[in-house]
Amino acid sequence: MIRQSQQIVRLLVAVVTLSGLGLIASAWVKKPTAATPNVVLFFMDDMGYGDLSVTGALDYTTPNLDRMAAEGSRFSNFLVAQAVCSASRAALMTGCYPNRLGISGALGPNSPIGLNPNEETLAELLKEKGYATGIFGKWHLGDKKEFLPLQQGFDEYYGVPYSHDMWPLHPFQERAKYPPLRWIDGNEPKEEIKDLNDAGRITSTVTEKALSFIRRNKNKPFFLYVPHPLPHVPLAASDKFKGKSARGLFGDVMSELDWSVGQILGELKKQNLDKNTLVIFISDNGPWLNYGDHAGSSGGFREGKGTSFEGGHRVPCLVRWPGVVPAGRVSNKLLTTMDILPTVAKVCGARLPKNRIDGVDWITLLKGDNNVTPRQNFYYYYRKNNLEAVRQGDWKLVFAHPGRTYEGSLPGQDGKPGPSPEDHDFPKALYDLRRDPGERYNVIEQQPDVVSRLEKLAEEARADLGDELQKRTGANVRQAGQSSN
Amino acid sequence: MIRQSQQIVRLLVAVVTLSGLGLIASAWVKKPTAATPNVVLFFMDDMGYGDLSVTGALDYTTPNLDRMAAEGSRFSNFLVAQAVCSASRAALMTGCYPNRLGISGALGPNSPIGLNPNEETLAELLKEKGYATGIFGKWHLGDKKEFLPLQQGFDEYYGVPYSHDMWPLHPFQERAKYPPLRWIDGNEPKEEIKDLNDAGRITSTVTEKALSFIRRNKNKPFFLYVPHPLPHVPLAASDKFKGKSARGLFGDVMSELDWSVGQILGELKKQNLDKNTLVIFISDNGPWLNYGDHAGSSGGFREGKGTSFEGGHRVPCLVRWPGVVPAGRVSNKLLTTMDILPTVAKVCGARLPKNRIDGVDWITLLKGDNNVTPRQNFYYYYRKNNLEAVRQGDWKLVFAHPGRTYEGSLPGQDGKPGPSPEDHDFPKALYDLRRDPGERYNVIEQQPDVVSRLEKLAEEARADLGDELQKRTGANVRQAGQSSN
Repeated sequence: MIRQSQQIVRLLVAVVTLSGLGLIASAWVKKPTAATPNVVLFFMDDMGYGDLSVTGALDYTTPNLDRMAAEGSRFSNFLVAQAVCSASRAALMTGCYPNRLGISGALGPNSPIGLNPNEETLAELLKEKGYATGIFGKWHLGDKKEFLPLQQGFDEYYGVPYSHDMWPLHPFQERAKYPPLRWIDGNEPKEEIKDLNDAGRITSTVTEKALSFIRRNKNKPFFLYVPHPLPHVPLAASDKFKGKSARGLFGDVMSELDWSVGQILGELKKQNLDKNTLVIFISDNGPWLNYGDHAGSSGGFREGKGTSFEGGHRVPCLVRWPGVVPAGRVSNKLLTTMDILPTVAKVCGARLPKNRIDGVDWITLLKGDNNVTPRQNFYYYYRKNNLEAVRQGDWKLVFAHPGRTYEGSLPGQDGKPGPSPEDHDFPKALYDLRRDPGERYNVIEQQPDVVSRLEKLAEEARADLGDELQKRTGANVRQAGQSSN
Repeated sequence: MIRQSQQIVRLLVAVVTLSGLGLIASAWVKKPTAATPNVVLFFMDDMGYGDLSVTGALDYTTPNLDRMAAEGSRFSNFLVAQAVCSASRAALMTGCYPNRLGISGALGPNSPIGLNPNEETLAELLKEKGYATGIFGKWHLGDKKEFLPLQQGFDEYYGVPYSHDMWPLHPFQERAKYPPLRWIDGNEPKEEIKDLNDAGRITSTVTEKALSFIRRNKNKPFFLYVPHPLPHVPLAASDKFKGKSARGLFGDVMSELDWSVGQILGELKKQNLDKNTLVIFISDNGPWLNYGDHAGSSGGFREGKGTSFEGGHRVPCLVRWPGVVPAGRVSNKLLTTMDILPTVAKVCGARLPKNRIDGVDWITLLKGDNNVTPRQNFYYYYRKNNLEAVRQGDWKLVFAHPGRTYEGSLPGQDGKPGPSPEDHDFPKALYDLRRDPGERYNVIEQQPDVVSRLEKLAEEARADLGDELQKRTGANVRQAGQSSN
């Protein structure tokens, strides 16, 4: 009740200030819309485009996510900034191409680099506006103390510092060089994750911590970031879900993640907060396909994680905010993880970072106006700052590059990966994603004008990003977030 | 009210007869379950596995079908008996491999053959049980009078006799040899379908006729068969839907088909019939992929219509029957169109055809017992009675064969098809569909035992089907349903 009254007062002040007295009458008859809504951001790990029921999952269901999709909007053309873990997370937190920040690939344990503490994250911007900020799950932007979430705007952190396949006792991969993998509470290492039984408690632990955060912060605006460490390998589920799905362990894990989302949405409802909460559900990159039955599905898009094809970059995006974001809508406008920061900042009345960002705000689209096109262009990197592809609308120009392919070699089984898929030479190709979402038909000969236009865009991107990186870090990529140790 | 009382009486008689007096008490406290439920069977045309929101459709939604899936069960491993129009329909109507009946491919206008009137269809079996039987939409099992639905157990027919791309004024294909395409009412040709404007009224006309059938037959059990002629090309939608979807015309057409399902489900509810109605929604085969943006999606499965890969044979299957079929469940048990006849016959207390059928009844699975496996094996033909592949559980053995491929050549656009995809040599290959649903990884070398087992199955299938065909027709394939003209 206190919170609602505060919100009504805030809303009225805003209405009077911005729009004059004429609007007050209509504000009174409408339900109050919070000027500072709560924000819940789910970020799955290696979950592909096709891994929800609403995007075609086989042999298991995701009823809570399906309901979220039905009650909110789904964005079918949503891309991550780089199809690898740490780089993708850097983009989400800062609104920048990760190359601008010197983060590429996936950081290992004891990484000398991390997200530069000088960068302003979404958590910092919201904290400045009075939000309570919590992260529960996988950070993966540097595991040294100076890089951990508490140094990046979060009040609370409980989770794993990097991927949970990076542990010395890993059952399927030689990992002897790694230190023990431990839960981190705030800045402090806690309990070790020793085996798959321990790993089977990751999803429920993250969920519990998130629920507690909501309960403790129900009387002020909060930003809850839930980067679930699964369905990244090694797959592990709690006893309640293990062995239940016809899809095998991957289906069990997805069912538990779906349950987790259901728990959190349910808690919002229970606390009477769900109408004033913007909930976003996305993934960090496509499926790690050479894990075969332990990998997700790219839903018909080409290739997967670690590639610049759509299967690597395109992930599900669900957004729910009752009364603000239309229910049951699907939009195919091109959007990216980098756009989350400016969009959420605008929604919450927060400022943008002082440094330049690459994201664009899509609040108008989000609210239901499908005639706006927030973003036309998208360019991204893959390994060693090579620009592998450029997109403009539905056109995608892929440059000749060496890279991994998951096609033609047998994927793994039961948690053991197939052969490492790293040495394929992809030719230069132009794809029309409207006609050919699977990127199978090279039309480079038929469309010379489009090719020139996209080549020019690529040149600008190369020059721009290189230059920015110099300015931002004053040094080279490796030193961007260099630890003082 | 009269109908409900009749049903209660029927139910009580059945309970007393079958189970003794001990069950009466529980029958009284439960809601009455009809021993003769209505049956509504939707059969889409060239709609692929990925063409519903719940199976991954892009850039348009199918809210009515999504609701149907949520209120009923979805079967993710459901195959058509042959991935071409007429053959697939023959299997649905008779419960047989279409080769047993001499029907393969798609019959053209004035076809000398059709479904042999001596075959007993699902409509005939239900009519014998007192059902009102109606078909509204595309028949495509012979357009001569002796082959039309009224000669196969249907009381009423309004629809098109074959595919609506078979018309002389076809805007995108030379079709001069064809006679005018006309609606058929009963046995009588009516209005001509002259152009895409006329074709744009197909879906709404079929829907209207189906709604009228429900209203007129609400007081007795009925079998309503709705084989929608779309989303087969040429695509056409009514003005209400045209230009509305971000997916273009294909999305408009799918939206109208979804609307149609919503109308029919809504009418059942309005007439208070929906709890006593079994509704099944399937498609005749996968998408006709060389129509590019005018084709649907196989949802990540390989290839499409007219091929023996999963993209040709696997289609969505939704089943709704409140109180009997569990809500929100997905099952991955292998099932086929041929199983519809024995399953529906059993549900409705009808007998099976006198001739041998290939379908198996899956009512126990349907009612929620996922431990039963109604069907382990499946074999199907493609062109000229060549057995192209055999399945047992998740194993699929593909024999070396020439066939169409949609990969590697540019698909069409705006209704014009890409180059005809007919001359690819597929090698013999073994696929494990559990690990590799996309049929990309040939494991024939690694699994010699599985290969032998499936080869033996194929030999039996070849011998069995050939033999049956001789007995059934007393002649050769072409004469199976020979017209007397």
